[in-house]
Amino acid sequence: MAEKFDAVDVIRTKRDSERLSDAQIDWVVDAYTRGVVADEQMSALAMAIFLNGMDREEIARWTHAMIASGERMSFAQLARRTTDKHSTGGVGDKITLPLAPLVASYGVAVPQLSGRGLGHTGGTLDKLEAIPGWQASLSNEKMMEILDEVGAVVCAAGSGLAPADKKLYALRDITSTVDCIPLIASSIMSKKIAEGTGALVLDVKVGSGAFMKTEENARELARTMVDLGTDAGVRTVALLTDMSRPLGRKIGNALEVAESVEVLAGGGPKDVVDLTVALAHEMLRLADARVTEDDLRAALADGRAMDTWRAMIRAQGGDPDAALPSAAHTQDVLAEADGVLTELDALSVGVASWRLGAGRARKEDPVQAGAGIEIHVEPGEKVVKGQPLMTLHTDTPELFDRALESLQGGCTVDADAAEGTGARTDVVLDRIE
Amino acid sequence: MAEKFDAVDVIRTKRDSERLSDAQIDWVVDAYTRGVVADEQMSALAMAIFLNGMDREEIARWTHAMIASGERMSFAQLARRTTDKHSTGGVGDKITLPLAPLVASYGVAVPQLSGRGLGHTGGTLDKLEAIPGWQASLSNEKMMEILDEVGAVVCAAGSGLAPADKKLYALRDITSTVDCIPLIASSIMSKKIAEGTGALVLDVKVGSGAFMKTEENARELARTMVDLGTDAGVRTVALLTDMSRPLGRKIGNALEVAESVEVLAGGGPKDVVDLTVALAHEMLRLADARVTEDDLRAALADGRAMDTWRAMIRAQGGDPDAALPSAAHTQDVLAEADGVLTELDALSVGVASWRLGAGRARKEDPVQAGAGIEIHVEPGEKVVKGQPLMTLHTDTPELFDRALESLQGGCTVDADAAEGTGARTDVVLDRIE
Repeated sequence: MAEKFDAVDVIRTKRDSERLSDAQIDWVVDAYTRGVVADEQMSALAMAIFLNGMDREEIARWTHAMIASGERMSFAQLARRTTDKHSTGGVGDKITLPLAPLVASYGVAVPQLSGRGLGHTGGTLDKLEAIPGWQASLSNEKMMEILDEVGAVVCAAGSGLAPADKKLYALRDITSTVDCIPLIASSIMSKKIAEGTGALVLDVKVGSGAFMKTEENARELARTMVDLGTDAGVRTVALLTDMSRPLGRKIGNALEVAESVEVLAGGGPKDVVDLTVALAHEMLRLADARVTEDDLRAALADGRAMDTWRAMIRAQGGDPDAALPSAAHTQDVLAEADGVLTELDALSVGVASWRLGAGRARKEDPVQAGAGIEIHVEPGEKVVKGQPLMTLHTDTPELFDRALESLQGGCTVDADAAEGTGARTDVVLDRIE
Repeated sequence: MAEKFDAVDVIRTKRDSERLSDAQIDWVVDAYTRGVVADEQMSALAMAIFLNGMDREEIARWTHAMIASGERMSFAQLARRTTDKHSTGGVGDKITLPLAPLVASYGVAVPQLSGRGLGHTGGTLDKLEAIPGWQASLSNEKMMEILDEVGAVVCAAGSGLAPADKKLYALRDITSTVDCIPLIASSIMSKKIAEGTGALVLDVKVGSGAFMKTEENARELARTMVDLGTDAGVRTVALLTDMSRPLGRKIGNALEVAESVEVLAGGGPKDVVDLTVALAHEMLRLADARVTEDDLRAALADGRAMDTWRAMIRAQGGDPDAALPSAAHTQDVLAEADGVLTELDALSVGVASWRLGAGRARKEDPVQAGAGIEIHVEPGEKVVKGQPLMTLHTDTPELFDRALESLQGGCTVDADAAEGTGARTDVVLDRIE
């Protein structure tokens, strides 16, 4: 078959800062999926896009072409309305765990097609797999059945959604073209739109532990994704949320499940509860359910969300009453002087937890269910010399030293600071729709 | 073996407009040659270099790394001094053919390691292969022997020189990263420096038929290459020369050999003679031979250069007395009105000749020895309606129409223009050292 375009011309167009036409974008994404455009050509194009950008129409068409590369799902057969959440990833971000059952407890369907962790940010599937018996892989039929009966499901995305994105993502990873807003936005949104959700709330993290280090970049990413969703007929809202310090007090797979259960039992750290409630409120609003934040706090306190959690875990083979795995070795990190803890850097804690075995360096690596970090003192609190600031958990005690290394400079006790210095303000920084 | 760098970090450095360190450049070129850096990574780096540039030190180190990827030659064993010429390529550029024997007739060695044509610019080896019996492939020993005895040799470059450049050039060709001055300059100069010549004259073409369309770009390329040569201890000079119209009146392989023989017989078109003499003068000056342009014109007129030409062709198996191949079919292009020929565009004529079979679209394609174009009228000359402006030659008459298409708009007869309008001024535009 004669090809409509030549990859060399398409690359040159973007290299020379010109707009890619709809036909060029459709062709290059399709031809890349078919293997007609080679990896080395797509990586040159990705670098040209990285450096010269794409405008709103180009990003929308690129996203459309990614969706067209694979199958589309539909939740139209469900009696419930669907509403979805996507987080750009951070340290201690276990929010999906309490959020999905909380929202589902209001009769809305919450399909959470999730991934595994890579690098210092954890993956929702890795966390839930710490629960004995729980299975991430479900057939489409089983997923629909659970959504119908329980309302919430967290499972691995099928390989049929946006295959062009999977291929391109692997390429971007080895060619320094990951941190590019048009490509990040189209990657996330192509999968979410292909999933067929009716509404989507985006949790766009900003700060050292996030993909986007500055509020300006996070805001641009959020704006781009909200536009893409809206243009595709998905009701979309984004919250900009703080990821300069870890979310909650527990980081690591089983540790985060434990903290999520605390939240579902009406307790848990304030920042985790606040963000869960804020996201649930947006998700339910987009699904036209009239619920206040006070109602949601009540649903956490009175056990309604917990009932849905237990049903959701059981539906995927998990035992909600089983003891969670714990690491074989622990070590406390002690305050070296009296003062106030003024900083607890998200990236430092995330990397430390990753090095303890909670995360993976390569896709095929295993993770330790029990590894991670428990935080005992939050920024703004007074400490005395020798007081435990954190406890490190791992099955591999020789990893303690490297974890401690990455905490250096990310955990500051200031002898002269006033109590409250560095304490968290609101976790939600802004709302974009 | 542990690698010194990660390709992802090297790409990121240039992506973010930072300088590549010497160690990064050495590593990435070497690792690419070894296959540790993948094609898709090098193409992303090439695009980042294309868009963000390299400074003088980076280009010098990149060139050095290309040279280090392969073997180096040396002409130190020769009794003669060596002097070399490189042209960036143009339409009708047969200058190497009269030039090499002319310079060698003064006792200097002229090793011309040449290539084949691709696209609308011809290749010197393709031209000489039109001569019955002539062979482009020589062993190093045979090449040295001919240089010692005859003084001039034109042969295929061995595959051992700058293999990283060969690999990278093939990649740039399919990823729209060819027209990039740092990469062009380092590609050309790495091969020339690895060859081991003592002096080098660069013929940097500017105009529609050249790689560099504007004088500004041509000047920057010339400056970059002269600096690279000088820094590497090679006496280097560049001439900027006009390629807005074809060189001479014959374009095509055997046709250009015939025109070169005219020049060596003391005749030939003025622009070809002028450029041959100007380049020879520079080459001999760099080899410390005191020769004037008048001496050189005399050497063309009195047969000294022709004697060396005949010896050079015979040394490589060719018969200088054999009839040259001619095409089976010809067609005249006639003036459509009375007037003055005001334009004969180099690119249009080059593409037409290529389409007639004189050039190749892909590396593995054959070329027709007899195909090409003879120009009967030069810009600035009066024509009358029906007068032949050119004759097209090909073995494949069905190609005439596509050749005529590419001449449209590139060959203008203006009824109102004065005689002399559009006539060639000096072929040498400037000299850079």
